[in-house]
Amino acid sequence: MADPRFFNVSGSFKLAQLALIAEASLSEGTDPGKLFTDVQPLTSAGPDHISFLDNKGYLQEFSKTRAGACIIDPSFAANAPPGIALLFTKKPYHAYARIAHHFYPNVAAKPISRSHPLISTNAIIANTVCIEPGAVVGEKAEIGNNTRIGANSTIGPGVRIGDDCKIDGNVTLQYCLLGNRVIIHAGARIGQDGFGFALGKESHLKVPQLGRVIIGDNVEIGANTTIDRGTGPDTIIGSGCKIDNLVQIAHNVCLGNGCIIVSQVGISGSTELGNYVMAGGQAGLTGHLKIGDGAQIAAQSGVMRNIRTGEKVGGSPAKPLRNWLKEVAAIERFVSKRKVY
Amino acid sequence: MADPRFFNVSGSFKLAQLALIAEASLSEGTDPGKLFTDVQPLTSAGPDHISFLDNKGYLQEFSKTRAGACIIDPSFAANAPPGIALLFTKKPYHAYARIAHHFYPNVAAKPISRSHPLISTNAIIANTVCIEPGAVVGEKAEIGNNTRIGANSTIGPGVRIGDDCKIDGNVTLQYCLLGNRVIIHAGARIGQDGFGFALGKESHLKVPQLGRVIIGDNVEIGANTTIDRGTGPDTIIGSGCKIDNLVQIAHNVCLGNGCIIVSQVGISGSTELGNYVMAGGQAGLTGHLKIGDGAQIAAQSGVMRNIRTGEKVGGSPAKPLRNWLKEVAAIERFVSKRKVY
Amino acid sequence: MADPRFFNVSGSFKLAQLALIAEASLSEGTDPGKLFTDVQPLTSAGPDHISFLDNKGYLQEFSKTRAGACIIDPSFAANAPPGIALLFTKKPYHAYARIAHHFYPNVAAKPISRSHPLISTNAIIANTVCIEPGAVVGEKAEIGNNTRIGANSTIGPGVRIGDDCKIDGNVTLQYCLLGNRVIIHAGARIGQDGFGFALGKESHLKVPQLGRVIIGDNVEIGANTTIDRGTGPDTIIGSGCKIDNLVQIAHNVCLGNGCIIVSQVGISGSTELGNYVMAGGQAGLTGHLKIGDGAQIAAQSGVMRNIRTGEKVGGSPAKPLRNWLKEVAAIERFVSKRKVY
Repeated sequence: MADPRFFNVSGSFKLAQLALIAEASLSEGTDPGKLFTDVQPLTSAGPDHISFLDNKGYLQEFSKTRAGACIIDPSFAANAPPGIALLFTKKPYHAYARIAHHFYPNVAAKPISRSHPLISTNAIIANTVCIEPGAVVGEKAEIGNNTRIGANSTIGPGVRIGDDCKIDGNVTLQYCLLGNRVIIHAGARIGQDGFGFALGKESHLKVPQLGRVIIGDNVEIGANTTIDRGTGPDTIIGSGCKIDNLVQIAHNVCLGNGCIIVSQVGISGSTELGNYVMAGGQAGLTGHLKIGDGAQIAAQSGVMRNIRTGEKVGGSPAKPLRNWLKEVAAIERFVSKRKVY
Repeated sequence: MADPRFFNVSGSFKLAQLALIAEASLSEGTDPGKLFTDVQPLTSAGPDHISFLDNKGYLQEFSKTRAGACIIDPSFAANAPPGIALLFTKKPYHAYARIAHHFYPNVAAKPISRSHPLISTNAIIANTVCIEPGAVVGEKAEIGNNTRIGANSTIGPGVRIGDDCKIDGNVTLQYCLLGNRVIIHAGARIGQDGFGFALGKESHLKVPQLGRVIIGDNVEIGANTTIDRGTGPDTIIGSGCKIDNLVQIAHNVCLGNGCIIVSQVGISGSTELGNYVMAGGQAGLTGHLKIGDGAQIAAQSGVMRNIRTGEKVGGSPAKPLRNWLKEVAAIERFVSKRKVY
Repeated sequence: MADPRFFNVSGSFKLAQLALIAEASLSEGTDPGKLFTDVQPLTSAGPDHISFLDNKGYLQEFSKTRAGACIIDPSFAANAPPGIALLFTKKPYHAYARIAHHFYPNVAAKPISRSHPLISTNAIIANTVCIEPGAVVGEKAEIGNNTRIGANSTIGPGVRIGDDCKIDGNVTLQYCLLGNRVIIHAGARIGQDGFGFALGKESHLKVPQLGRVIIGDNVEIGANTTIDRGTGPDTIIGSGCKIDNLVQIAHNVCLGNGCIIVSQVGISGSTELGNYVMAGGQAGLTGHLKIGDGAQIAAQSGVMRNIRTGEKVGGSPAKPLRNWLKEVAAIERFVSKRKVY
């Protein structure tokens, strides 16, 4: 069971109900009325628990699991331990997510008195907002229904946050407008001045940053990630984007919808990503590039040119993924041969 | 216009006055008395707006702009759309910065009551300081005139901050002395213990970190950047340095004046940079190096040896930039030839 | 002397006593009763100060030092300036650390009133705890003896922190259990949701993260580092691990004991490190890997496969260190030859 210090599991559920939620079909001969009390990983699950297999690398753990039920792709059924109930689906990870949400639903945050001195009397705050202790809300900021503002976070003047958002602790938001169902993790910084200087030999002149950060719906932004506001145009994060921890997004960057940006990626100023672009961990992109829809950038790549729709790239400087892998292999062969002589 | 939620534009200005501020000369036949109401990017500017062109990549946007005036290098005059007023200068970006500051001057922060329990009664705070809600100021800290301390920031005991500084929200300062006109962005951490351990097989022994961080005048430090204090010697950031977001600067590092350190760079302990060194995004430098004045380090470089004055390097391990680019090209040719056979 | 704004040096000590603490032997002819007032770096030390030499690169500074005494490896005795007292040991850096701790002992934090509205009345807080201003402590959190919670930090509900821990300012802890003598530097984020999504063409489905972060004893975690909680299994940081600034540790990662993780490293989900693994700055590890005890990963490496016990790797993609260095040299020779033609 998830640690009850932190998580409250909701009642037992019948297998048939869970299969329905998961959009999965039950294996033959299983009892649809059997009660399950929790979700659990393969290695720690017991007879009352439901688990899942999504990665071939864990087939061995699957074949030995003591779980009472498991969500799997039908093609792995032969590896199942005897007696286990199987929930078949082509998308076991999605199915698991839905069932786990059912066992551990989001708990409505408790509204907390908003008459304390850290909250501007001019802020426009819906009645159902939860503002945790130590959070500061600036003048004319607007906060929508059911949104939670975490402890010691700072919401700058004029910032607008939509409905059903979760701003975690120690976050800083300024010069930004957020959609609905946005999650901002602890320590993220959104809307500060970008790195804009007119460089000189004697000194560097600061350029006023007059834009904002515009964030769509259903966006998630990781812990200690930084997103600078635009210089005049805005910095834009499209709906459904998921951004991991410690990512840097510079001024005027535009992300389309549904992009996946893994930890420690850096995107330089004015670069535009299409929809559903994926960037692996620690990749870096220089400024003023255009990255097409569905492009995939391997971890640690250094992207210095535009990327076409659907193109996959790797290496630093980045090139088509096939070419990069070929180069890596060719160098290895070339050097190992030279060893012989 | 910049979003009035966040920015207050100051009155209209005559073109002649703006040209003077910009140190630019007006194109022939323009009306020096024409009023302009705002700065705007090329693509969104209208007849009452002044814009700028600083990057050849945007020549097409320039040729189509509806801006009433534009700051450009004279060599691009032929691309101007009909009827536009041109402000000629060899440094359009500097000129734009000056005009943008004129339309959007820094607003003096309002001093806020300093008699609340989060501020030590022993702190020495100038009368014109603005301390935002939730900020904590430790014993004997000193804060100069017109400095602003952002919400939920933590200023440790004994820290000294000069005049006209802006410390943004959720910052932590400890064991450090700051000059005048220093800007520290949200979430930066300055002065914590460096990563100093005497390594052992059984355990690692912590080494006391007895130095400080000394920061000159006109320095800007990015969001969530970390600068560790010295071990005994100090960590030093020279005047005029501009450091981007998520940069790591280890103990005893010395930066000369006017260095430009782009996002996610890491500089290891005791490495010394001269004046006006530039380090591109995600570059890494090992410890105990000496980097000469004006050296330029390409993005994602891995610097493992000293760099001479004015030298340009790239690659990992880093080498002279020309050699690195030659290697990249040679490998590509070598591998693509092998495809043929 | 270390800046008295920040550090209090404790009394003078006799050389014999310091040699004892350092587990070092005195050079012949030195006065064991001579008093020393402070530790100092080689370049700034005077006759009343004790210094150390641990890195050959500083032999010249050693030969010119005005320090009254110096801790060194006996093999460097010939380079000593005349009249200096020498403390011989095979581990000068360890010896220095012990002596520096003796001059600058940890000061017990002053307990601060805990009856303010930011601390839950249900939290279980030992009497000797120091909670600085602005810190928020959630329901049923437990804090052990002599632990200090820094200003503006946020301790989530149910979090357990052991004895003698130091949580610095502006930290966020949630869904985590900490051992004893743990140091968490400013701005670290521990226990937030991991980056867990079931990816889709239309949208990405969030997967509940039901595990915790479990941190052993004597762990140190750097400024603005992020450690995500497990998905169901826990994220585990073994005792004695030292983690630098701006490191990313994803969900379900396990670190054995005594690992050294340098700044800006990223470790992807479910990767397991053995004991005493070392990862250099900016290295990246993909997910689901197994890294053997004592493995060493060079800075900026990109690790995409399992690493055996004691293996040293470098490069991206990472390979045995020797092979990588050989490749680097071979490419350089190959390209420089081609210059000739």
